[in-house]
Amino acid sequence: MTEPLRLGIAGLGTVGVGVVKIVRRHAEMLERRCGRPVVITAVSARDANKDRGVALSGYAWESDPVALAKRDDIDVFVELMGGHEGPAKDATEAALATGKNVVSANKALLAIHGQALAEQAEAAGRVIRFEAAVAGGIPVIKSLTEGLAGNEITRVMGVMNGTCNYILTRMEATGQGYNTLFEECARLGYLEADPNLDVGGIDAGHKLALLSSIAFGNKPAFDDVVLQGIQRIELEDIRHAADMGYRIKLLGVAQRTARGLEQRMTPCLVPANSPLGQLEGGTNMVVIEGDAVEQVVLRGPGAGEGPTASAVAGDICDLARGFRISTFGQPATSLQDLPAAQTGLPAPYYLRLGLQDKPGALAKVASALGDAGVSIDRMRQYGHSEPTAPVLIVTHKCTSTMLEAALESLASTDVVDSDPVALRIEEL
Amino acid sequence: MTEPLRLGIAGLGTVGVGVVKIVRRHAEMLERRCGRPVVITAVSARDANKDRGVALSGYAWESDPVALAKRDDIDVFVELMGGHEGPAKDATEAALATGKNVVSANKALLAIHGQALAEQAEAAGRVIRFEAAVAGGIPVIKSLTEGLAGNEITRVMGVMNGTCNYILTRMEATGQGYNTLFEECARLGYLEADPNLDVGGIDAGHKLALLSSIAFGNKPAFDDVVLQGIQRIELEDIRHAADMGYRIKLLGVAQRTARGLEQRMTPCLVPANSPLGQLEGGTNMVVIEGDAVEQVVLRGPGAGEGPTASAVAGDICDLARGFRISTFGQPATSLQDLPAAQTGLPAPYYLRLGLQDKPGALAKVASALGDAGVSIDRMRQYGHSEPTAPVLIVTHKCTSTMLEAALESLASTDVVDSDPVALRIEEL
Repeated sequence: MTEPLRLGIAGLGTVGVGVVKIVRRHAEMLERRCGRPVVITAVSARDANKDRGVALSGYAWESDPVALAKRDDIDVFVELMGGHEGPAKDATEAALATGKNVVSANKALLAIHGQALAEQAEAAGRVIRFEAAVAGGIPVIKSLTEGLAGNEITRVMGVMNGTCNYILTRMEATGQGYNTLFEECARLGYLEADPNLDVGGIDAGHKLALLSSIAFGNKPAFDDVVLQGIQRIELEDIRHAADMGYRIKLLGVAQRTARGLEQRMTPCLVPANSPLGQLEGGTNMVVIEGDAVEQVVLRGPGAGEGPTASAVAGDICDLARGFRISTFGQPATSLQDLPAAQTGLPAPYYLRLGLQDKPGALAKVASALGDAGVSIDRMRQYGHSEPTAPVLIVTHKCTSTMLEAALESLASTDVVDSDPVALRIEEL
Repeated sequence: MTEPLRLGIAGLGTVGVGVVKIVRRHAEMLERRCGRPVVITAVSARDANKDRGVALSGYAWESDPVALAKRDDIDVFVELMGGHEGPAKDATEAALATGKNVVSANKALLAIHGQALAEQAEAAGRVIRFEAAVAGGIPVIKSLTEGLAGNEITRVMGVMNGTCNYILTRMEATGQGYNTLFEECARLGYLEADPNLDVGGIDAGHKLALLSSIAFGNKPAFDDVVLQGIQRIELEDIRHAADMGYRIKLLGVAQRTARGLEQRMTPCLVPANSPLGQLEGGTNMVVIEGDAVEQVVLRGPGAGEGPTASAVAGDICDLARGFRISTFGQPATSLQDLPAAQTGLPAPYYLRLGLQDKPGALAKVASALGDAGVSIDRMRQYGHSEPTAPVLIVTHKCTSTMLEAALESLASTDVVDSDPVALRIEEL
């Protein structure tokens, strides 16, 4: 096959412009590697007059992405608009309905509508690739779906939201609080239009749901992902964690348990000297564990023009080379509805609570925990000037159900201020 | 395509047995993922009667791997014998000549004869895949050839010999010397039959030549790899390096320079807190840098039954799924003969020399270096009981040509004992 692979690119933001640049700059290289030219036929974005720093006059312009998707002079619809409803969804469906393959960077769309889209694609004999939707430039979808296809995957973990990791590592490095760094991220343009997508863990949860589907053969089930954001993490949590040899990361974990599929994206304590613990700033990391390969760790930039465009370009090259694969690595109709595991495997937990300065207060806390079956591994009360003493507790392993009971029991004492912060400790 | 993909496996050592186990244990999973059954038709090894802990009676047995390769009831010849001449080469050629695709774990064969084999395969419309030949279970060939295909690769680095990394990290951890740990590796079966393949850097050099060919589009040129083994590294080098915040690694680096393609596999000092510096034991790590993706780091087990079989199985799944790609990511006939860069980019160097206890000795060393244009960044003379004082020097950046001149100039003084140890410092 030596005819050009013809692209229609919808969305000319940072990533779209990055893809245009790669296709133009590396035309010869791509043709050599793929065995055929890769060309852009048409593009689509909201504003046709904006200067994007790249020449677009050689391409047909469509103001409507659905019209772009339906053009009969494109082979691949490249969806870089974002959003899980509206134009992105309509255009993706239109592309599949008119016989196009799809390359997408849209994690929300795929995490929420991935099953239906995969079924539509496969019924039409077309494919959807989405390397850029998860962990930016890291070829993690390819590694999991193809390179590690001989493995029964046992666990997937990852730090996959660069903004959260930036905030958490900068808190430790600079001693600035969460709110200060949140404002800094807003100024630097690191936050999604709805910041809760980042700091609430939703964006990273979408990514986890996609990896989990490939790893465990379940229909993407974003609604089953247990989500907890980083908004309540305080400087003192980060310091306490550091004192004990841990760092706090917004960590995704997906694994099959006897009770079903566990998927969670929550702030956890991880050993400071582990690869995940050492991850700085906006870098992403995914850890894949399989029955044959043991453990593979992939690390790279989680966002940005070049890295994300690199992932899109990899998918385009696959299609140019004629690779065809099911969206989630096996036929969409064979994906299962795995039950969501209600509680994770037992783990130790970190608790931070404000203890009132009353005689016997610490004893009350200890008994509340003990009554719930949660035993204490370590406890420290720090020196303090306010009337409330910060107390940090590390529990022995317990289930999240036991922990919730213990937190309820704590709330019913009259010595603990407000909601304790409870973070799982992952020994990895 | 739903007919089974039929495998002929030559070589039933650790890796071969691992592949048989995966194909048997995961038959259903592989069929679901690949869309067709993957079956073993025939196997070949030296000793038909040896108990390998896995049932082989269902497969045809060939004592001659060439006969296996020629069988008309196999689609894929899986070469897990090793060795760059003799049966492995003959059988691979026979497989291609009779229309089979090839999956190989044989880094030596491909580094030395890869160009001819790739040309033979492509002329016959067949493919050779070799994920298991480089960095064990890490899907690095796939990441570089496919996932990062949209990048002009600027540099590839890696720690890719687990035995060397085991020896170097154990020297630091236990304070035992090189010879003691070499003997330990021999006892544990960590060494190749010819140990120089490991500790001389040859095995890792083969791997680098393969990565370099994919990254830079050159014909695999193992003879151009500058090789230096770890045999002369002493405990004091490791300690000196640690004092300065470095660790010593057998590090491969391939990059295009203005003077040609630089490929080297030599012990280097790398920052102790860098991902490469923190790599322990038999784990491998590959760092890939590209113009779009910036930097991706891949880490995983570099050897062993499961991880290596996982890589072989990934290649088998690709073939079952119908993926077809040129051996080195672009047609073999388009690969270039890039000139080998005679000297690497300038870098600082670590020197250890034994200085005789004579007045003015240190001054002579300093002038010898200065005369060769090599300036000194740091110098330390350690306390000593022997007549020779250990002196360690860190130079400012210089080329390897300048360094060699400086070493010659040092040798011509009458104050330096024996050959200094000179190790490049890679700031990464």
